[in-house]
Amino acid sequence: MSTEKLWGGRFSAQADSWVDEFGASISFDQQMADEDIEGSLAHVLMLKKTGILNAEDVAQIVAGLKDIRKDLHQNKLHFTAENEDIHMNIESILTDRIGSVAGKLHTGRSRNDQVATDFHLYVKNRLPKIIDEIKTIQTTLVKLADENVETIMPGYTHLQHAQPISYGHYLMAYYSMLKRDVERFEFNMKHTDISPLGAAALAGTTFPIDRQFTADELGFSDVYGNSLDAVSDRDFALEFLSNSSILMLHLSRFCEELSMWVSYEFNYLELSDKYTTGSSIMPQKKNPDMAELIRGKSGRVFGHLFGLLSTMKSLPLAYNKDLQEDKEGVFDTVKTILPALRVFNGMLSTVKVKKDNMYQATTHDFSNATELADYLATKGIPFRQAHGIVGELVLKGLQTGKNLQDITMVEFKEISPLIEEDVYEVLKPEIAVERRNSYGGTGFKQVREQISKAQAELENGKEYV
Amino acid sequence: MSTEKLWGGRFSAQADSWVDEFGASISFDQQMADEDIEGSLAHVLMLKKTGILNAEDVAQIVAGLKDIRKDLHQNKLHFTAENEDIHMNIESILTDRIGSVAGKLHTGRSRNDQVATDFHLYVKNRLPKIIDEIKTIQTTLVKLADENVETIMPGYTHLQHAQPISYGHYLMAYYSMLKRDVERFEFNMKHTDISPLGAAALAGTTFPIDRQFTADELGFSDVYGNSLDAVSDRDFALEFLSNSSILMLHLSRFCEELSMWVSYEFNYLELSDKYTTGSSIMPQKKNPDMAELIRGKSGRVFGHLFGLLSTMKSLPLAYNKDLQEDKEGVFDTVKTILPALRVFNGMLSTVKVKKDNMYQATTHDFSNATELADYLATKGIPFRQAHGIVGELVLKGLQTGKNLQDITMVEFKEISPLIEEDVYEVLKPEIAVERRNSYGGTGFKQVREQISKAQAELENGKEYV
Amino acid sequence: MSTEKLWGGRFSAQADSWVDEFGASISFDQQMADEDIEGSLAHVLMLKKTGILNAEDVAQIVAGLKDIRKDLHQNKLHFTAENEDIHMNIESILTDRIGSVAGKLHTGRSRNDQVATDFHLYVKNRLPKIIDEIKTIQTTLVKLADENVETIMPGYTHLQHAQPISYGHYLMAYYSMLKRDVERFEFNMKHTDISPLGAAALAGTTFPIDRQFTADELGFSDVYGNSLDAVSDRDFALEFLSNSSILMLHLSRFCEELSMWVSYEFNYLELSDKYTTGSSIMPQKKNPDMAELIRGKSGRVFGHLFGLLSTMKSLPLAYNKDLQEDKEGVFDTVKTILPALRVFNGMLSTVKVKKDNMYQATTHDFSNATELADYLATKGIPFRQAHGIVGELVLKGLQTGKNLQDITMVEFKEISPLIEEDVYEVLKPEIAVERRNSYGGTGFKQVREQISKAQAELENGKEYV
Amino acid sequence: MSTEKLWGGRFSAQADSWVDEFGASISFDQQMADEDIEGSLAHVLMLKKTGILNAEDVAQIVAGLKDIRKDLHQNKLHFTAENEDIHMNIESILTDRIGSVAGKLHTGRSRNDQVATDFHLYVKNRLPKIIDEIKTIQTTLVKLADENVETIMPGYTHLQHAQPISYGHYLMAYYSMLKRDVERFEFNMKHTDISPLGAAALAGTTFPIDRQFTADELGFSDVYGNSLDAVSDRDFALEFLSNSSILMLHLSRFCEELSMWVSYEFNYLELSDKYTTGSSIMPQKKNPDMAELIRGKSGRVFGHLFGLLSTMKSLPLAYNKDLQEDKEGVFDTVKTILPALRVFNGMLSTVKVKKDNMYQATTHDFSNATELADYLATKGIPFRQAHGIVGELVLKGLQTGKNLQDITMVEFKEISPLIEEDVYEVLKPEIAVERRNSYGGTGFKQVREQISKAQAELENGKEYV
Repeated sequence: MSTEKLWGGRFSAQADSWVDEFGASISFDQQMADEDIEGSLAHVLMLKKTGILNAEDVAQIVAGLKDIRKDLHQNKLHFTAENEDIHMNIESILTDRIGSVAGKLHTGRSRNDQVATDFHLYVKNRLPKIIDEIKTIQTTLVKLADENVETIMPGYTHLQHAQPISYGHYLMAYYSMLKRDVERFEFNMKHTDISPLGAAALAGTTFPIDRQFTADELGFSDVYGNSLDAVSDRDFALEFLSNSSILMLHLSRFCEELSMWVSYEFNYLELSDKYTTGSSIMPQKKNPDMAELIRGKSGRVFGHLFGLLSTMKSLPLAYNKDLQEDKEGVFDTVKTILPALRVFNGMLSTVKVKKDNMYQATTHDFSNATELADYLATKGIPFRQAHGIVGELVLKGLQTGKNLQDITMVEFKEISPLIEEDVYEVLKPEIAVERRNSYGGTGFKQVREQISKAQAELENGKEYV
Repeated sequence: MSTEKLWGGRFSAQADSWVDEFGASISFDQQMADEDIEGSLAHVLMLKKTGILNAEDVAQIVAGLKDIRKDLHQNKLHFTAENEDIHMNIESILTDRIGSVAGKLHTGRSRNDQVATDFHLYVKNRLPKIIDEIKTIQTTLVKLADENVETIMPGYTHLQHAQPISYGHYLMAYYSMLKRDVERFEFNMKHTDISPLGAAALAGTTFPIDRQFTADELGFSDVYGNSLDAVSDRDFALEFLSNSSILMLHLSRFCEELSMWVSYEFNYLELSDKYTTGSSIMPQKKNPDMAELIRGKSGRVFGHLFGLLSTMKSLPLAYNKDLQEDKEGVFDTVKTILPALRVFNGMLSTVKVKKDNMYQATTHDFSNATELADYLATKGIPFRQAHGIVGELVLKGLQTGKNLQDITMVEFKEISPLIEEDVYEVLKPEIAVERRNSYGGTGFKQVREQISKAQAELENGKEYV
Repeated sequence: MSTEKLWGGRFSAQADSWVDEFGASISFDQQMADEDIEGSLAHVLMLKKTGILNAEDVAQIVAGLKDIRKDLHQNKLHFTAENEDIHMNIESILTDRIGSVAGKLHTGRSRNDQVATDFHLYVKNRLPKIIDEIKTIQTTLVKLADENVETIMPGYTHLQHAQPISYGHYLMAYYSMLKRDVERFEFNMKHTDISPLGAAALAGTTFPIDRQFTADELGFSDVYGNSLDAVSDRDFALEFLSNSSILMLHLSRFCEELSMWVSYEFNYLELSDKYTTGSSIMPQKKNPDMAELIRGKSGRVFGHLFGLLSTMKSLPLAYNKDLQEDKEGVFDTVKTILPALRVFNGMLSTVKVKKDNMYQATTHDFSNATELADYLATKGIPFRQAHGIVGELVLKGLQTGKNLQDITMVEFKEISPLIEEDVYEVLKPEIAVERRNSYGGTGFKQVREQISKAQAELENGKEYV
Repeated sequence: MSTEKLWGGRFSAQADSWVDEFGASISFDQQMADEDIEGSLAHVLMLKKTGILNAEDVAQIVAGLKDIRKDLHQNKLHFTAENEDIHMNIESILTDRIGSVAGKLHTGRSRNDQVATDFHLYVKNRLPKIIDEIKTIQTTLVKLADENVETIMPGYTHLQHAQPISYGHYLMAYYSMLKRDVERFEFNMKHTDISPLGAAALAGTTFPIDRQFTADELGFSDVYGNSLDAVSDRDFALEFLSNSSILMLHLSRFCEELSMWVSYEFNYLELSDKYTTGSSIMPQKKNPDMAELIRGKSGRVFGHLFGLLSTMKSLPLAYNKDLQEDKEGVFDTVKTILPALRVFNGMLSTVKVKKDNMYQATTHDFSNATELADYLATKGIPFRQAHGIVGELVLKGLQTGKNLQDITMVEFKEISPLIEEDVYEVLKPEIAVERRNSYGGTGFKQVREQISKAQAELENGKEYV
């Protein structure tokens, strides 16, 4: 393959290969080879349609590009750092195959709009895949929630038992988080689904190109209205990294909890052997590796976001080589979150819920203290005072090993003659959960309504639009 | 004011004041005092409406809260770290004023949903202000663009002269960036404009509250559907910090260019004395301080985003004290970007454009090289070959001090007999700009169309919806 | 106080006050007022010593500065945004008090070296305080470790019981981390303890100043050898933020564990009431707020580091206004980590260790599995094979509820006739711990040696040099 | 190669291959294959020395490992994701080759200390390479500075001409920054050069191992004193990423200036064709790609630092799978900064300095204004007043196009009768530079002294110790 620089006319010395290597992007931007060929095909068809190139030249170029694409899919192409990037590599291969007519392909465009087009297409193609994987997890969550509406577990704040809740309710909290993630990725499409092709180097072109035509060919819904913006904008990538960071943050929270809940101490869940690993030295270990790894990978994605923000800060318009650094973080993020989502779903789907342990934990703590305070409040004691009374009962109970449900009616009456036998009912965890029937609360009825709504959303293909 | 802990029943020892100080959030969350009172008013009216409290108690509480609000607006309130946060401080002041009936206010809610409500309201109230300031800059940009459609300047890539462009076109590129910023902040509203009130500690409440009522009172469009999610979600804050980071990134790019363009070397723009400062030692200095400071402040906002991402990573549900760290970064971001936007607009509105210097810069460089290459391409020479020919002319020109327009017709004919006299017209910067008439290009007609479209968008109150 | 700009000669228009406000740093750099006066005093004494100013002028200036300092310490000074920063404010107050001779103070220096000097002094003064607080915690750790050498607890990897360890050993791990923190802050001093004073605006000065003299007066060990570097270097601040980030990371790990270990499920530790808080709604709650808050504040410090890295990236030499953003993050970090360290120490010193619960947890798990595998290996079975055998015993034990120590000798013999009665001794947690006597291991002897070494280090004032 | 899990005894189901793939680290940790074998060799020799294994077994294992190392260097090894990581892959290959005796290699160690050892060795081996590359640039800087002591250029603050300086002085500022970088990487060695080997899983081992022996074999200067710390500490990696971030920040500043100084407007420097590239569409372009790319890559390194800080935040002791994320960022940083340093040096060494352009720029600006103010101050006018007078002269000069040196003596006398003919000498740029002879200033004598000192430092192999 020819490796003379396609822009070399003005230069009298050539870089050493190790310098080329440093500057080249082919090692990673070859991941956009498909998008690059797709973009070139659309461009050259437009050059024909507008009469800029004649039909014969275009036919040759199209055939050449399709030929290259076929070889690409069969892993037969050989790329080189001398040819810098995927654009120059493919043009160079095309020249080798069809001769100097290949040089006409680049009429009316520049690598600046070309790479922007490829990158937009790359992200545009991945967004639906990511959304699909998230929805798969949502579906799993709803299914599990449905099976666990009446599974009682301690609800936590500050990692302390707070109030008993429904495990189904807990699962639906993550459903809600993921719903916002989907909405963010869907919004991300708005600034991704725009064609920069035809912006040329930075200023548009003197050729009578048809940008709408290429946009339509490539399936873009919109066309950049300002050529400088078209080649220098990476908002869609920043949005993608930010959305991915928040997604990973959500998963990290779930994985943190998973890691605690499968511990000897909590013992609420058991992970499938398929999603755990052992130790090279401690034969008894069953480590929630996958959960930890997903949690750990959140830092990596945050890092990519921060890297791109830093890199782009203070960059003058329009294109600067710094922008070459835009892609690896995005590519790695795609390669991180897609399998993370899949592994997460697999892990979640196969988890064994130890309902008895969950329930037991709600009967020996003081997580029914709010029930008692609320009960007193309904009897007319101002809530603050009720809170104080119950606080003292808890303090005494901790010292004597007595739970609230163990207090005798005589003792209760000393606190307030208004307390009746029904207090014992109120103190039961399942009753406590059931009675939290305020909208969005953990009461069984509420949880069932959340689930129904979610099922409808998931069944409806356009649920979030 | 009473400083006994409102949750102290269960405790037998009190924290030292310096520990209280460390844990307290009152030093900053008092910025949400208005929102907190607003939230309490809505809550207590709902308690009346649902019959949870009687009308008399509610009347007392409402009067007390309004009284406190009046004092707040007159800076008459005194807050203390012993009372931890704005919620406890206000409840404590209320107790001092109306006695133990104040204790009934907290019926059916918790500080967890209360602080979330305050914080949602805080961001919800600032988003429109930020959007307004951005639109003010957009209006300025369009006005300046309109005055400078035919102002010719060098367009840059890699900070090298690339092709001559319209200064109006350059300004409109920033219009486009800011338009996306507005869209992001508008989308941000979707996940901000949701009421967490009534989620209580984490699980909802047994009281027959009406969450839709409080949401309506507070002007929220939606209500959180899951109580755990309601108290632990900070997506809206993360989105806000991410959107603010991208906004500041855009401003940093403009400010970087401003800082270069007012330099001795570029000398394209002059800033008003009002937006520059001098040196304590060098009497001639006129420093573009405001531009530099806005640029520098982008790092600060990025830092807040990363702070919150790190803080929230791996946090188990529902509320943890770590979440107290969510606010300062957001508050500081608001205090950073609002004046930054105002200063930016003032600076931009008063800048003096040195049109002659801009134009001159396009006549002694080789930024018309693409024109010549395109010209050759239209004469049938494959673009790649044309590119090579012109590259060699540039190399020779650099050595001989001859620009492309200085090449004689005889010399041109040696390159190709197809070159005609019209080549000299093509090489003029203003013609080069005018002819870049592809959609979104820098051609005058295109720029005028961009401006018209923008004017329509700005006139239309709902332009982005 | 006069508010005319001290650099205003060349300017014909003045900024509006809200623009001044945006540009001013006085709201935060007044925290360096002491350092600023100290620097000015050293500078003016040098001007006298070198004969640049006469003794009479210097006497007036010195008296004026000391007067201002007195008022500063009594909170009597009034600073204004019109005077931008602490330097101009103090010079302006000085001018009000002693007249135009005040103008001679600035001879041979610039605000660029002045602010750098103040900032170096600020950090230099705080480093020893931070180191002291860390050492206080180290002392507490060693004391607690000494009391808990033989306190047995489960050692964790992947939050799964791995092998029993000494709680004293666990505490000493944090001692080691903090030792590296101390070493980093000590190294930080190297690049902080250098005087920039006399570098002037960027290039030095034509006045025959004596930089060594001012450095000595201010207690600096070294003088910047390059004036451009002196005014533009902020490495010492970046190092400080990086070191603080790593310190907070260490504390966040301990606090994470604390938060789990005081949970209902682990129940290994109990925090003093002084370092916990209650809930406004749930009377039983005792939340480890301080631990959570320290953990949460790590994100904030990370954010400051990233803010400054981003801000300084790509800044041309020498001084740019962006550098004004260097201070707030550092100031806030100081204000974050100093109390965080103190609160951490208080919390740690008062924690109650529930030794029985810790020990119990090591007797019903399979954390003695490695013992058995090692035992088999010493009997000649290759370790990998031994590992496999024990793994199967664990699997069976989990199904039958039988721990390893419950296996009968008959059953053991079936596995290998080489197993003897002494296997039961080996399986005891305390024996397992004691026998891990490799250097740095959890064996009691090893832990005692770690403690002795640490005690010697702490007693020796120069232990880390 | 056998792919049965080496820890599989306790497990009844196996992961799917795509889950294995997600969890496996072999795709990147094979970069530590050499270090892993080296570590295993040291370990097994120790097992022999201490009598834990017999000589015959050890001989077999040593031979097997050396055999594998040979194949590694000839790229003949095949690693699989089923075997997870480099440790398991090599052990598995060893088993295939020498049978079950291979299982004895892992006696008395764990993958936790093994991977920590590998990673320490990896960083320890790279630090000297990085330091060497930095020193190479320092040598180039000193050489160029030496050639350019009397090359006059404008010194900038706020990107405005401030005072004329020596180009040699400017270059030496970067020498100083890089000196601190070297010192940081040297300090980094302190916390890298410690052996974790023998810490085993987390608690040490019951085998009578000799950790000092393995440390000596591997060339470590120190041994971790606490086994929990040994396996969970990544401070050395965080320090490495922080130091690398500051290094890249320094390079980004130089590259920013390079990018401006090769622009049409500044035109102070010309880069070699070898370190620039052209445009695919604009034949005249000569883009400083390498400078931009180095500048851009700073963001990437910052991102890695942030990623690891986030990942490690709140991780409980000792080892968690999250820590697997520690390596890729470090590896990528090494692969980024080593070539970046080399390319930077090549670019710097071959830059052409346009001395005339630099000098010319100092004669038509007002960068000699400080000279005049200082001159007046030496005549007894308080500096602040002198500053004001000169400021007004500049303002008038800007309006009339007259530089300070163009003011007539008559006009000067009107300002102050104390002004003499020698003022014109003082206003010359070269005199202005020469006279800034304060320590560390830009005066030629000072610059020469900086250079001499630097040459001595560079000649002395131990210059920074």
